[in-house]
Amino acid sequence: MYIVGVGRTKFGVLDKGLPELAYEAMLKALDDAELSVKDLDAIYCANFCAGPFTQQLHLNSLIAALLPGSNMPIIRIETACASGGAALYQAFISLSKFENIMVVAVEKMTHVDSLHGVYNIAMAGDASLDQSQGLIFPASYALIAQQHMLEYGTTLDDLALISFKNHKNANLNELAHFYEKEVDLDMIKDSVVVCSPLRLFDCSPISDGAAAVIVSRDKRSSRDTNVIGASMATDSISLAQRKVLTSFTATKLAAAKAYKQAKLESPDIDFLEVHDCFTIAELIAMEDLGFCRPGEGKYMIRDGRTMLDGDIPVNVDGGLKADGHPVGASGIAQVIEVVTQCRGEAGKRQVKNAEIGLSHNVGGAGGTAVVHIMRRGN
Amino acid sequence: MYIVGVGRTKFGVLDKGLPELAYEAMLKALDDAELSVKDLDAIYCANFCAGPFTQQLHLNSLIAALLPGSNMPIIRIETACASGGAALYQAFISLSKFENIMVVAVEKMTHVDSLHGVYNIAMAGDASLDQSQGLIFPASYALIAQQHMLEYGTTLDDLALISFKNHKNANLNELAHFYEKEVDLDMIKDSVVVCSPLRLFDCSPISDGAAAVIVSRDKRSSRDTNVIGASMATDSISLAQRKVLTSFTATKLAAAKAYKQAKLESPDIDFLEVHDCFTIAELIAMEDLGFCRPGEGKYMIRDGRTMLDGDIPVNVDGGLKADGHPVGASGIAQVIEVVTQCRGEAGKRQVKNAEIGLSHNVGGAGGTAVVHIMRRGN
Repeated sequence: MYIVGVGRTKFGVLDKGLPELAYEAMLKALDDAELSVKDLDAIYCANFCAGPFTQQLHLNSLIAALLPGSNMPIIRIETACASGGAALYQAFISLSKFENIMVVAVEKMTHVDSLHGVYNIAMAGDASLDQSQGLIFPASYALIAQQHMLEYGTTLDDLALISFKNHKNANLNELAHFYEKEVDLDMIKDSVVVCSPLRLFDCSPISDGAAAVIVSRDKRSSRDTNVIGASMATDSISLAQRKVLTSFTATKLAAAKAYKQAKLESPDIDFLEVHDCFTIAELIAMEDLGFCRPGEGKYMIRDGRTMLDGDIPVNVDGGLKADGHPVGASGIAQVIEVVTQCRGEAGKRQVKNAEIGLSHNVGGAGGTAVVHIMRRGN
Repeated sequence: MYIVGVGRTKFGVLDKGLPELAYEAMLKALDDAELSVKDLDAIYCANFCAGPFTQQLHLNSLIAALLPGSNMPIIRIETACASGGAALYQAFISLSKFENIMVVAVEKMTHVDSLHGVYNIAMAGDASLDQSQGLIFPASYALIAQQHMLEYGTTLDDLALISFKNHKNANLNELAHFYEKEVDLDMIKDSVVVCSPLRLFDCSPISDGAAAVIVSRDKRSSRDTNVIGASMATDSISLAQRKVLTSFTATKLAAAKAYKQAKLESPDIDFLEVHDCFTIAELIAMEDLGFCRPGEGKYMIRDGRTMLDGDIPVNVDGGLKADGHPVGASGIAQVIEVVTQCRGEAGKRQVKNAEIGLSHNVGGAGGTAVVHIMRRGN
């Protein structure tokens, strides 16, 4: 599978509706691929929460209305925060039937007050086991962070360094939610505690935005990025159903399958886009994806290895933390960043010798994980 | 593609939650296929409205929690009332990668008061063009019915005959929402007007329920039903974006593709399961699927051709009207009925010489259409 076109909107608090956001990303992706709607055989629409946030379901038909007369198969895919990744994974499989598929991922969230927003997002957790106990996602990840600190000696300062790095990267990304927002370590450490131990700057924001990619069965130019690994795994939805909190089984299983499919190992990866909905999630992802042993993620942060100029840059677009987190769209934004880096088109945030990149998208607190490994075209 | 196992719950007002309903249908399908969870490679979960109705999204992870340790790829698919059909269509495509796939379709709706229920269902229509104008679905289909009556002389009595037939059929289906409910023509004609010209008995009910099928790349027994056509088409979401109200372009396009794929025409079909969310929808489906010319659906009804003992029986399980309409699950219930008939296991409602059946699942007011054509195994 080749990614032949990419396009996205700015992420942030945007004065645009769901269809406008989707349309902008789709047009940009078509333009980038030098294709027209007629060239597409099918569309996957990734979205998490348009029902509760905008009273809009049936998004596949909403997309059809944006492309009058196309009438092609369009399917909405929802796997919580991993919706974007899952839609691309599905497209990978469906290329056996179709030649060119668009994946458009969109979320509109910021028009709802943050209390209701957080409740809506909590629908990614078990209604009876989690939501009824008040276990919104900052609380879930706070439990995870506490356990990781207890077990491995990870510190709040380690988490602050992750936030700092991602905000620094976002300042090199004009489309990021927090572009041109100067953030220093003191601001992070002094920020309000949302759910102990997590502070405001440990949490990704609620964002609007859309992102689209076009994938093709065949390669058409040297600019096309080759998807050499695509995998998905699931796990129980509630933390109460897990034996271990400091690691996500779904991530480990998906990564193992993707590495096997791509016929390579973690040391072969040049840079990563991981699912940092909370800072602790980025640290755990490093461990689960095999870039260090369990509990040693903290050393990678402390040693600056995941900085833009480190040996394994992580979330160079700013990550969910600072690029933004329009939930269903984030997984596709990650993939767009990998493609942009592989093409050498990332400008000021270009990773040196970016040949092989990995994207890692998680739904809920590890209930779903999707991993893609991409290689630069030639 | 072969359908090797089927299972469903009763449809109706049920005192069971979303996971319990899904679990029951999944176990029945596994049992029917004589397979275990370990034999499955992936699951598609079809659901329309669990977010607004039960504050539960991320259903793929909820399903994973029901099957501890399986960790397989599970994806939720939502295309409004066509979610079930779309999930099966997707499974058809994905068999290029997987050997055995389960499609589980589930909806829990009756615990919400009917006013809010109708508003939730309206999310299948355009938020700005339809919902803001009060265009809930009974109103959309009332406009369609009015236009069909005006243009072709279809009468309220024709619609009553459709309702009567489907209730009669449901009395032969123990799992139907309206099993053992005696309905005569006077009851239908005297029922309250919901949205003129549609009366209560022209509308399908709000139901709870789940349905599951297991599909396999290879045939394993003579009981396996062969899917010889699978297709999907889309159209604009809002009625305001349509040139014609009396016909659904998405149905016509999906049917044409399915017939071509199956290498047959409508006269080759022995019986039908069509999307009768409202009685007028069944009549239009007959026309759009090519069983009569536009406007002549009324003669098929009047002549009794679509009755269980007619030459082209329609909705022998009772249809959405009387079997029930747990929205996301209905498309799979239709397919289960076709399989049951093809196997010759339909008991009192068995269609004579049922060799080739067609299922037709619609999302919204024709925004999505999915058609499957199945042939009896041998």
